[in-house]
Amino acid sequence: MVLKIGQSESFSKTISESDVYNFAGITGDFNSAHVNKVAAENGLFGERVAHGMLTASLISTVLGTRLPGPGTIYLGQNLNFKRPVFFGDTVTATATVTEILNDKKGTYKLETVLTNQNGEIVTDGFATVLYREEQGEKNEKH
Amino acid sequence: MVLKIGQSESFSKTISESDVYNFAGITGDFNSAHVNKVAAENGLFGERVAHGMLTASLISTVLGTRLPGPGTIYLGQNLNFKRPVFFGDTVTATATVTEILNDKKGTYKLETVLTNQNGEIVTDGFATVLYREEQGEKNEKH
Amino acid sequence: MVLKIGQSESFSKTISESDVYNFAGITGDFNSAHVNKVAAENGLFGERVAHGMLTASLISTVLGTRLPGPGTIYLGQNLNFKRPVFFGDTVTATATVTEILNDKKGTYKLETVLTNQNGEIVTDGFATVLYREEQGEKNEKH
Amino acid sequence: MVLKIGQSESFSKTISESDVYNFAGITGDFNSAHVNKVAAENGLFGERVAHGMLTASLISTVLGTRLPGPGTIYLGQNLNFKRPVFFGDTVTATATVTEILNDKKGTYKLETVLTNQNGEIVTDGFATVLYREEQGEKNEKH
Repeated sequence: MVLKIGQSESFSKTISESDVYNFAGITGDFNSAHVNKVAAENGLFGERVAHGMLTASLISTVLGTRLPGPGTIYLGQNLNFKRPVFFGDTVTATATVTEILNDKKGTYKLETVLTNQNGEIVTDGFATVLYREEQGEKNEKH
Repeated sequence: MVLKIGQSESFSKTISESDVYNFAGITGDFNSAHVNKVAAENGLFGERVAHGMLTASLISTVLGTRLPGPGTIYLGQNLNFKRPVFFGDTVTATATVTEILNDKKGTYKLETVLTNQNGEIVTDGFATVLYREEQGEKNEKH
Repeated sequence: MVLKIGQSESFSKTISESDVYNFAGITGDFNSAHVNKVAAENGLFGERVAHGMLTASLISTVLGTRLPGPGTIYLGQNLNFKRPVFFGDTVTATATVTEILNDKKGTYKLETVLTNQNGEIVTDGFATVLYREEQGEKNEKH
Repeated sequence: MVLKIGQSESFSKTISESDVYNFAGITGDFNSAHVNKVAAENGLFGERVAHGMLTASLISTVLGTRLPGPGTIYLGQNLNFKRPVFFGDTVTATATVTEILNDKKGTYKLETVLTNQNGEIVTDGFATVLYREEQGEKNEKH
């Protein structure tokens, strides 16, 4: 058994306007909620917000670089968007192993939670991954 | 009822190396599968691949700009990563309304599928959104 | 006749510092009016401004994605820069069909106007395009 | 008289896929001619091409950094798009003073031409600028 239930890792970043603009630039999602200050001020949240998928992608950062880390194959991700993330918010993505799905195959389920600087949950859900220690590039793993 | 079952919209993009590198730069996911050619050549897929969350984010582009479009509130997303996306692959994200969850509240479920240039499904799943026509910025949709 | 006189479409975006910096990075236009705060404060506009060609490029977005849309061949563009665009300004590019140049060939003239959040015209001019419906990628327009 | 008829300056750059992708990312112009390899192969030019406004923006680089240089106020630009620019093409923007519009005011007309690595004109037109030597930041001018 490579991963153990309860293991947990996090990654945090303050989400800047340039993050949101560059994310729009990669994905083509120029929804006015993200890149139009005037429309956003008249919208539901009163100001521009980050793309939900941008902040959710910080989960991928935890899985792919920390837990399980390099060699991880991402099988699935479930996301519930609960609160908006505003420009300048500091988001922490945390992944915690909650279930050994198949010890032989090396499949695991992790609870994945995003919180803001006030400790509020902005997004939650869970990930499923495939990970075998021999796949990992050990020299990249701390 | 604003959306109807069966309505469908798509968005396509060829995923470039610069997309993957910029996405790594925003998210911090520098997993060697994405940005280390040498390690990736020795890895499962034999070459660098796009982040699953990068291509999945094209779903957000469909939802936020085409169907339902501006004014959409993203409530949830479920993703099954089935095949890798290689640099230079052309990915099409398609969202199709499959269920009216609550007509009064304006909540809907959409099937969300990503295919590559060979018509293979790389990722599937479903989205839930909140959308009321009066929320849409009508002057952006004429 | 594919396009009709009077047809009009718009695209809006708040111009961020990162937009201006990335545009400088692509074009090499590092004129201090755009990327040097100290020099710009002593210059004509009192602060850094967006490149005229950056905001003018939003016209291309309207033409290439909305009206006429995919399949459009850009033949020409005439631009009069009238007011500066400051960082944080929200610019709307609007294209309106004003003349059927050659119905058989599919050439059209469109009035192209950029306004800021105060409704002031920052740039005006006109575009000429070639567009035939059969050129459009129909599967992207449904 | 600050500028003289016949004065000429150039700026050259090889246009990369990342230039085109980042330009799409700033402007929102995700026309398939630029970012969809499959659609572009079935389109008029047989492969993806750079945005006309991207390469035209190299004129702004000449005007704003070389001739007239820092302190230049861009008054207008006229563009005729004649040939496509493919990924990997090397484009040279050249501006040549052709008319002193108003010596007192400091307004000038420049012929502006973009050529590719084969010497073919891809875009031509002319620019009008306002430039007074005292406006220029002399310490930035070579």
